[in-house]
Amino acid sequence: MSTKPKQGRSRVLISDIKPLVDCGRYPIKRVVDEALKVEATLVADGHDVLSGALAWRKKNAGKWQRVALKPIENDQYSAELSFSEIGAYEYKIEAWIDYALTWLHGLEKKFKDGQDVSVHLADGIPHLEFLKAKKLKEAASLIELISKDPNAAAEKALEPWLEEAFHKHPEKQLLSESDLLPAYCDRKKANFSAWYEFFPRSAAAEGHGTLQDVIKLLPRVADLGFDVLYLPPIHPIGEVNRKGKNNSTIAEEGDVGSPWGIGSKEGGHKSVHPELGTLDDYKELIQKANALDIEIAFDLAYQAAPDHPWVKEHPEWFKWRSDGTVQYAENPPKKYQDILPIYFESEDWENLWDELLSVILFWVDCGIKIFRVDNPHTKSIRFWEWAIAETQKLHPEVIFLAEAFTKPALMHALAKAGFSQSYSYFTWRNFRHELMDYMEEVSQGPGADYFRPNFWPNTPDILPYGLQSGNESLFMTRLFLAGTLSSNYGVYGPVYEQLAHESVPGKEEYFNSEKYEVQHHNWEAENKITWLMRVLNKARKEEKALQQNRNFQSLEIENQSLFAYLKWDGEEKTVCVVNLDPYNMQEGWLQLPHDFMPLSEGGYRMYDYISGAEYRWREEWNYVRLDPARPFHLFKVIG
Amino acid sequence: MSTKPKQGRSRVLISDIKPLVDCGRYPIKRVVDEALKVEATLVADGHDVLSGALAWRKKNAGKWQRVALKPIENDQYSAELSFSEIGAYEYKIEAWIDYALTWLHGLEKKFKDGQDVSVHLADGIPHLEFLKAKKLKEAASLIELISKDPNAAAEKALEPWLEEAFHKHPEKQLLSESDLLPAYCDRKKANFSAWYEFFPRSAAAEGHGTLQDVIKLLPRVADLGFDVLYLPPIHPIGEVNRKGKNNSTIAEEGDVGSPWGIGSKEGGHKSVHPELGTLDDYKELIQKANALDIEIAFDLAYQAAPDHPWVKEHPEWFKWRSDGTVQYAENPPKKYQDILPIYFESEDWENLWDELLSVILFWVDCGIKIFRVDNPHTKSIRFWEWAIAETQKLHPEVIFLAEAFTKPALMHALAKAGFSQSYSYFTWRNFRHELMDYMEEVSQGPGADYFRPNFWPNTPDILPYGLQSGNESLFMTRLFLAGTLSSNYGVYGPVYEQLAHESVPGKEEYFNSEKYEVQHHNWEAENKITWLMRVLNKARKEEKALQQNRNFQSLEIENQSLFAYLKWDGEEKTVCVVNLDPYNMQEGWLQLPHDFMPLSEGGYRMYDYISGAEYRWREEWNYVRLDPARPFHLFKVIG
Repeated sequence: MSTKPKQGRSRVLISDIKPLVDCGRYPIKRVVDEALKVEATLVADGHDVLSGALAWRKKNAGKWQRVALKPIENDQYSAELSFSEIGAYEYKIEAWIDYALTWLHGLEKKFKDGQDVSVHLADGIPHLEFLKAKKLKEAASLIELISKDPNAAAEKALEPWLEEAFHKHPEKQLLSESDLLPAYCDRKKANFSAWYEFFPRSAAAEGHGTLQDVIKLLPRVADLGFDVLYLPPIHPIGEVNRKGKNNSTIAEEGDVGSPWGIGSKEGGHKSVHPELGTLDDYKELIQKANALDIEIAFDLAYQAAPDHPWVKEHPEWFKWRSDGTVQYAENPPKKYQDILPIYFESEDWENLWDELLSVILFWVDCGIKIFRVDNPHTKSIRFWEWAIAETQKLHPEVIFLAEAFTKPALMHALAKAGFSQSYSYFTWRNFRHELMDYMEEVSQGPGADYFRPNFWPNTPDILPYGLQSGNESLFMTRLFLAGTLSSNYGVYGPVYEQLAHESVPGKEEYFNSEKYEVQHHNWEAENKITWLMRVLNKARKEEKALQQNRNFQSLEIENQSLFAYLKWDGEEKTVCVVNLDPYNMQEGWLQLPHDFMPLSEGGYRMYDYISGAEYRWREEWNYVRLDPARPFHLFKVIG
Repeated sequence: MSTKPKQGRSRVLISDIKPLVDCGRYPIKRVVDEALKVEATLVADGHDVLSGALAWRKKNAGKWQRVALKPIENDQYSAELSFSEIGAYEYKIEAWIDYALTWLHGLEKKFKDGQDVSVHLADGIPHLEFLKAKKLKEAASLIELISKDPNAAAEKALEPWLEEAFHKHPEKQLLSESDLLPAYCDRKKANFSAWYEFFPRSAAAEGHGTLQDVIKLLPRVADLGFDVLYLPPIHPIGEVNRKGKNNSTIAEEGDVGSPWGIGSKEGGHKSVHPELGTLDDYKELIQKANALDIEIAFDLAYQAAPDHPWVKEHPEWFKWRSDGTVQYAENPPKKYQDILPIYFESEDWENLWDELLSVILFWVDCGIKIFRVDNPHTKSIRFWEWAIAETQKLHPEVIFLAEAFTKPALMHALAKAGFSQSYSYFTWRNFRHELMDYMEEVSQGPGADYFRPNFWPNTPDILPYGLQSGNESLFMTRLFLAGTLSSNYGVYGPVYEQLAHESVPGKEEYFNSEKYEVQHHNWEAENKITWLMRVLNKARKEEKALQQNRNFQSLEIENQSLFAYLKWDGEEKTVCVVNLDPYNMQEGWLQLPHDFMPLSEGGYRMYDYISGAEYRWREEWNYVRLDPARPFHLFKVIG
């Protein structure tokens, strides 16, 4: 008669699989060895026993691995997996009526009810034959016993071995299967990284800095404890419409321009600015950084100065106006004449995409494994999804950080499309309730499975109003919060260590920004900020709880100026307490959370990385007092 | 290089479409003219203006209808549709960068900023040409004005006509489209029906009732105000292993058996029990019922007595045990020897499905449009999905009620699979908080888009403990709650009107149940229950708010024994107040809900269908007092 579904005899339905990003359209993200707990609802008609498994493999390849689903409640089941290698994966839920267990449970109920079970026993012989074929001797002898002594056979069948054997060797008849769902396993650095940023042209003691000057600063970066060094673009800077100091539209003689105004007669996105050095210098930098456990993050900024070689060679990759000029970037009424946006709707888009991808692959070949992507939210999201996937097919270790300070839905769209990390709203979250809400969102909200935040107290584009005070305590707490709330964090230095705080009036922008000029810094200076960087990065390396974001819980503390929180990783726990008031000493009582830190006789030893002191907390409520001069505790919880 | 997505140039991404049942795997349900509000998130890179539409059509056919999406907040958009015909539909979200509006908004910002807009105006000529091609004369004259007088042209372009024209004639370049999503539009009865059930064999004054006796009772059913008459199965009843009175496993001479033990030498699922009459009698019953605006609901019970013709003709449709007998129904240690379950895992399952579907189509050909399905949760859910869809392809007006009193996930799975209505947990929800929670779940929970509850105070299978008291007030309130809380409700009579309450000791089952014997009733008796049935069914027909379940709000009332609630349909509102205490008068103050019933000078006229009285409520809090003898108000809200 009518077409019938292929799975017509498979009676189990699988639904409500969680987590799921846009119904499985985008991958769940995890890092190596990080748990992924999958839930699903299994239902079938009738009263039969259902069994199921969570199965996963490398995408389109490899052997399926499986773990049994366990019932939770109300027909929900769950299982947990973790990936042991980086790369793209796929997983699915399998479910089936477990005829063997159904038979066994029926036997148990009838036998206990005193019913004659001889026919029931005989009905089960096919299930025992299945086990016998798996070389289970006990199954063979049970088959013999059934015809000889049904009562003894029933007793034998109801011993634990048979249920265990059925679980171990499921028959999986008339299997139901979910759709294949995608996951991506990154290397651990995608989840745990400490970034330091500076301008290479400001790396010299005098004059225009070079990549060789950057190499000389690597030991300092390592000593401060950072493991990613992010440099703004290193390409030739456009000369046409070049920006002057303080974003002036007219550059004066000798003005160096913005590194993000990429491309000139010296080359474009695959070239090194001659004043910084050569491609070999850059490769040397990458290698010498790696030797100190530092990775260089490349700034991928897909835009062109008016004199970028692409404009002549591929005019179709830009939008042309009715007056014969190329469309420059604008957000009316604002104009950005030094930058031409890429025209992603170009009819030559396929060649354009190939060229853009080739830029990434070029730098990967030079040794780059981390890309910080400039303003990805002004470039086609579909392009990113394709380019990141294509890169990771060849180089699954490559990490992309999205520099998109924009609307929530757009930031999430980029993270779904494949960005490994994302800049975040942390920069503008100052009060306790703001920090709590935002941490709950990033640690437990719908984005928790694909949006990995990276917390920055400042960037070359953003000098937040708070930091414009120049208050040292606030500079300390913002850095401390970034590095303890989020497992990925970064800071734009050395201006941060110097408490630089002069802004363009009324704006959250640095005055005399390094974006438009060369500066010189005292890289040797030591102060509370450099002290904190070392202590913080050391604690982060030792405390597993600070190396992930999924497990976060804010703690009760009876003072609105104090913010306390627990992070944990398995049994390892870290408690932080921060005085958010940069001007006054604050004290209060902090409550240990019942669920995570139940009280035992010995209480807890609280070792403070900041002071080196150790306290013993034996009570539910514990007194803390923090001075703006040293406004936080970072406790390792022992026992 | 690598494969690129087809939609590579389409920059808009569509996500988070709501409502969605299992990611679009199952249809959203609506009835004719019922609103379906669809939400979606649209994002694209950059700052361009996005536009979108909700499009729908009859499944696989017909012309697309469209309505524009309107922004809500945070990149969410919504639009509302309603279906004008019954049948299967599909819908989708379309979205595009609105280049014309982007250009117009840019023009406005630049012009207001005092910038020279002559090039910008010229850039927009293609958008004006597009309107010109749509015969818009103003667009043609604007094109001419642009070269003559840019300032005048800008002013002309910024008048409302142009923005309106762009909205009316979207260019829809590089369109993004969501997946097609399914919806099913039922006739209104799927959402609004009053069911009455009795046993046709108990329809006679004496002896075994017949379908002709049922025909004689139709005027009474119509007079009580019911519009669906549901009769238990009318097929020949098995003689092998027939059940005796009170579910005895041994039938005595003359015992009539259970109508759900279907099939004998007299025939099976396409036959009428000779003692009830003929197929022609049944067709006559259907026609005479229809003439009184009553539909006959057919009991579709897919199971076989041991002597059902299928067992001999299609032994492969049953499960055979190792001793050569057919597997009877069991839920160990319980046994149901009079019923053989259908074996849905049969290798001959495709012929089996065809035969089962043919049963439905046979009765549809006789005039049946409503099927009450017996225990659908013990038959393959995939079968139901197929059978209901196949039936509705040919007969979109057919309605299926699932009689599944089982686990939530399984009840929801059946509703998703296509059942138009479902029996519900109402039967066991007695206290105010239970009723409130359950109503919130069914009216606003995830099932609200596919699970249509049908509320029954009793069934032949269930005499709830409360009703075993025989308390008349409780019989009234349970009927009143069923018929006012849910737009679909039903009652098993005439035992309900008679306050029948003798149970099998310790069980929620009727003693001397009509399931196993013929009974005789005084169909002429009038009492408070028959009075209430008339009043309730009249109010339901007049009050649109009682004809749907989506808009429900419980009201504050300062007495835990009183339960008050508002239902509304557009501007039409109904307020009910129920005394849940069947033994004592209860009084209390009821609060009008600010959001739905703001106070104005005249207040509200409250017309009570129960007493015929009218009150004027001028205050936020209003006094009510209810005696168990008349334990409810049913207010039409006027003004």
